[in-house]
Amino acid sequence: MAVCIPKSEYFERIAKFQARIKAAGLDACLVHGTESDFANVRYLSEYWPTFEQAGVFVPAEGEAVLLIGPESEKYARGRSVLPNVALMLNYRESAEPDYPGIPLATYDQVAKMAMGNRPLKTLGLVGTAVMTKPTLDAVAAQLPGVKVVVADEVFRPLRWIKSENELNCHRKAFKVAEKAVAAMLNEMKPGMTEFQAIGIAQREIYANGGEYEGHSLYCFGGDRTSNGISRPTSAKLKKNEIIQLNIGARVGGYSSSIGLPVYFGKLPKEQMALVEFGLRAHKYTFELMKAGADAASIAKDYTQWGIDQGWGDYMLYGPVHGLGIMETESPWIETTSNYKLQENMTYQIDTFFTGNGYGLRWERGCIITADGCELLSKKFMSLNCCKLD
Amino acid sequence: MAVCIPKSEYFERIAKFQARIKAAGLDACLVHGTESDFANVRYLSEYWPTFEQAGVFVPAEGEAVLLIGPESEKYARGRSVLPNVALMLNYRESAEPDYPGIPLATYDQVAKMAMGNRPLKTLGLVGTAVMTKPTLDAVAAQLPGVKVVVADEVFRPLRWIKSENELNCHRKAFKVAEKAVAAMLNEMKPGMTEFQAIGIAQREIYANGGEYEGHSLYCFGGDRTSNGISRPTSAKLKKNEIIQLNIGARVGGYSSSIGLPVYFGKLPKEQMALVEFGLRAHKYTFELMKAGADAASIAKDYTQWGIDQGWGDYMLYGPVHGLGIMETESPWIETTSNYKLQENMTYQIDTFFTGNGYGLRWERGCIITADGCELLSKKFMSLNCCKLD
Repeated sequence: MAVCIPKSEYFERIAKFQARIKAAGLDACLVHGTESDFANVRYLSEYWPTFEQAGVFVPAEGEAVLLIGPESEKYARGRSVLPNVALMLNYRESAEPDYPGIPLATYDQVAKMAMGNRPLKTLGLVGTAVMTKPTLDAVAAQLPGVKVVVADEVFRPLRWIKSENELNCHRKAFKVAEKAVAAMLNEMKPGMTEFQAIGIAQREIYANGGEYEGHSLYCFGGDRTSNGISRPTSAKLKKNEIIQLNIGARVGGYSSSIGLPVYFGKLPKEQMALVEFGLRAHKYTFELMKAGADAASIAKDYTQWGIDQGWGDYMLYGPVHGLGIMETESPWIETTSNYKLQENMTYQIDTFFTGNGYGLRWERGCIITADGCELLSKKFMSLNCCKLD
Repeated sequence: MAVCIPKSEYFERIAKFQARIKAAGLDACLVHGTESDFANVRYLSEYWPTFEQAGVFVPAEGEAVLLIGPESEKYARGRSVLPNVALMLNYRESAEPDYPGIPLATYDQVAKMAMGNRPLKTLGLVGTAVMTKPTLDAVAAQLPGVKVVVADEVFRPLRWIKSENELNCHRKAFKVAEKAVAAMLNEMKPGMTEFQAIGIAQREIYANGGEYEGHSLYCFGGDRTSNGISRPTSAKLKKNEIIQLNIGARVGGYSSSIGLPVYFGKLPKEQMALVEFGLRAHKYTFELMKAGADAASIAKDYTQWGIDQGWGDYMLYGPVHGLGIMETESPWIETTSNYKLQENMTYQIDTFFTGNGYGLRWERGCIITADGCELLSKKFMSLNCCKLD
């Protein structure tokens, strides 16, 4: 049975969002998404742009409209759960074609489609972290006299608590990621390139029901294991050094990622000690995660524990971040956080240590429960998994 | 031998860009890139962000600075050809973490790094199609009194004419794409999902030296073949209908894509006629492509020819678009274009026809030569390739 979000759930989301728009004193919100950062738009419409960008116009009262680029009409009408679709020049691809002869809409027309004759006095912008200049300029030019405000916080909390359907997408995405990791552990050999190792994971993700990678996949060795963020290269896998894997599949829109350090041969003693400590720190974090826990306290507890264990110099940032459509999404768990965990929030426990010339990351997702957390994968969490010979 | 852009070529690009910045009367340009639309930043620095966004600050005189998000310092320092790197909050991921304790730069500090005491009076913005609100806001707040202008055209033509190294990346990327397509034609079976067919291509791309897909890969059947833009789904491949493939690999940053319609069994007569006409139209376009040809005339000639052949109703937009780091980039060939083709420009000949319930696309890249064009793939351009049984 396909794991996905039923159409009705999209309309429930829009209704909840509309209540929040009204409560915030706004007349409507304009939501933005791009090819790589599409979560807001997909959350409200199921639509996922490629080549182009996209938006959703959601009025406090009335009907939401999906906003797309000039080339995507048939694709969008076939995919979007929203029947109202408008083509707009500002969502076109960055090659900026003219599209002679294709009729395009403006925001004043979209507002009319969505709201009829209700007045648009104040518009909230959502997804401002990825909202681009053509859209900002079009709003200013096509909606003169409308007050425009940043409204990310009106929308963002909707994505925090997951429904059972969302949780099932995550559960399946982790099952697919487990298969990809298992195949890599089985088939990776010294001398293979990092890219070739990624190919094993890609093959398994698509063969087992994934719709795409959950994030840009990680397989890299040597010094680059100390990178918080990185990309694989054409470098060959070597013996006797840490090789970092972070492998995530996407199912029904929802991401996963499983991370572990692996090696061929034998690691230098201090690197093996970090692998071992990293796994202890990873498991220590599991114990901190439960409904009602204060996010900042989790980050502070973890940080202090790491320092007490003697590895403070290897710690860079918060130990946990939100998981959803994006593999990394709001809310993070940092020492500056200001909220409490709630049931059915989903997180990546992202246990990262960065040293001089090497580093590593143990990572997996979890669902917050009343008295703890449900790990989204229980595989690949022993030191035995790390040794590949 | 690895196919890539040598470090020296990046500095030649920057020198050419600096000459254009000066000629345009600007003191500096700020260039933007995202995870999915990273071409401008990679062109100048080799850096390709993931999770985060990135920029390059290029002064008319002085040294370019790579601008990155707070999590990418080690990755960027290892990858960027530019030794100057600044971490900035506005390039952070859309989850918007706080990163307590990580020191971050502002644009006035970046300008100082790049230009010393030379005055910054006018700043050009480049990559505005993908430049996001946090960056626009930071520019306004951190560079008060500086005049900010859109300067995409100061940069864009640099990417039009390809060097021999760039051409070699494209040539290799098409070789890899050919292997991926060949494997799909060999292994696709009715009953397999579209996603599973994509997995075959992904496996081959990475196994044969690709660093990533060249674009979001296409494999879809039935009505969705009429979509100009689309994505694969979990639908199963069926007999007796068009299945559209567009498969591209990325090598050394540069994209490729090979597109063809395929089918199992037998196509209805009118669909087979479109497949056949499409291939003729594809080959007809080859003849129009050469240095000195007027872009608008190519689009008009192609369109009129298509109408004369009786297929005008199936034509949606220009027959050719630019190819480079992005699989679709400037310049397009449209009836509204206003330039002439030059030697070593690279294009995708994108022969797309959309009908009622079906459509198709024949596609491959080419390099413009003095008297014609060099096809970047000569495979998969006969009707024999389309029949998969």
